[in-house]
Amino acid sequence: MKINEILRKVKDNLSNERYEHTLRVIQTAKKLAKIHGINVEKVELASALHDYAKCEDKLTLKQYIIDNNLDKNLLNYHHELWHGPVAAHFTEYTLGIKDKEVINAIKYHTTGRAHMGFVELTVFIADFIEPARQIPGVDSVREAAKENLNEAALLELKGTITHLVSKDATIYPGTIEAYNDLINLKGDR
Amino acid sequence: MKINEILRKVKDNLSNERYEHTLRVIQTAKKLAKIHGINVEKVELASALHDYAKCEDKLTLKQYIIDNNLDKNLLNYHHELWHGPVAAHFTEYTLGIKDKEVINAIKYHTTGRAHMGFVELTVFIADFIEPARQIPGVDSVREAAKENLNEAALLELKGTITHLVSKDATIYPGTIEAYNDLINLKGDR
Repeated sequence: MKINEILRKVKDNLSNERYEHTLRVIQTAKKLAKIHGINVEKVELASALHDYAKCEDKLTLKQYIIDNNLDKNLLNYHHELWHGPVAAHFTEYTLGIKDKEVINAIKYHTTGRAHMGFVELTVFIADFIEPARQIPGVDSVREAAKENLNEAALLELKGTITHLVSKDATIYPGTIEAYNDLINLKGDR
Repeated sequence: MKINEILRKVKDNLSNERYEHTLRVIQTAKKLAKIHGINVEKVELASALHDYAKCEDKLTLKQYIIDNNLDKNLLNYHHELWHGPVAAHFTEYTLGIKDKEVINAIKYHTTGRAHMGFVELTVFIADFIEPARQIPGVDSVREAAKENLNEAALLELKGTITHLVSKDATIYPGTIEAYNDLINLKGDR
């Protein structure tokens, strides 16, 4: 399936606002991929599809997770975390895109996880820093992303964990595993 | 074994400074137990023994964990987290104290865990707020502890997580499980 055909499907499934965010993530992720020598086609494809399920309502996502036997533990955490795994499953089993780097980049784009590959890291960061984002600390992640994707992802995770704690929100275990992994990588350097 | 006999053993195994901290934790924990109607003897016993292994060196603790088949995953985290499980095992198998509330209060006093019981919560909090502690945010935990132990433990965990993130330290998964559990309890109220 060509990228334009994918983008038509994505556009049909999203609000205008969310589709425009998707286009900005694609552009940001492609820039990062070029800087760091990462496969641009994979990064583009994963970015295009990362939010495919973002505009589905909570009940639809929950039903999809149950019907398709995705990790039920997700349902113990905020529904904001459900759309990534759902979009990854849809991409793999409905669109028939089997590339694991692309699938994992879609699946883990919200939570992160330990041992993220470069395509995953790129989409994870691009989603956080695309030009319309005004999250506190985003500029330091933008700067770090030009130099070192692990460092940028770590800054992003530190901001996310601190933000979740400040608003009394639960923290998905995979997010802490991603953080601990990057701290350990840094220690090993 | 009488509490005085236990305290002699504890004193023999600790520096003066650490033994005085232990005495302050006992006093603080007993006060909290009286306020909240928690078993004072169990709280006293667990507080007396919580830091029993604190002055052992890293290699001794590591060897104890391996020799006694304690959770090896501890060794992937900061050695500061090892003395609680070691002291709990020593209390159970060398001193022969089998009370699970006492053992768990010793075992989890540094990390916390999900579904802490009242004796555990009391020691976890008393260790953090004993009068000589000058940790940022400790006064709000002291105030909360007079009213609600879950609320106090949550404040303590929020402070700990934020502090660990600020210094690029790994976070033990049980600490996040403790935090998530208390957030969910709060949501259910």
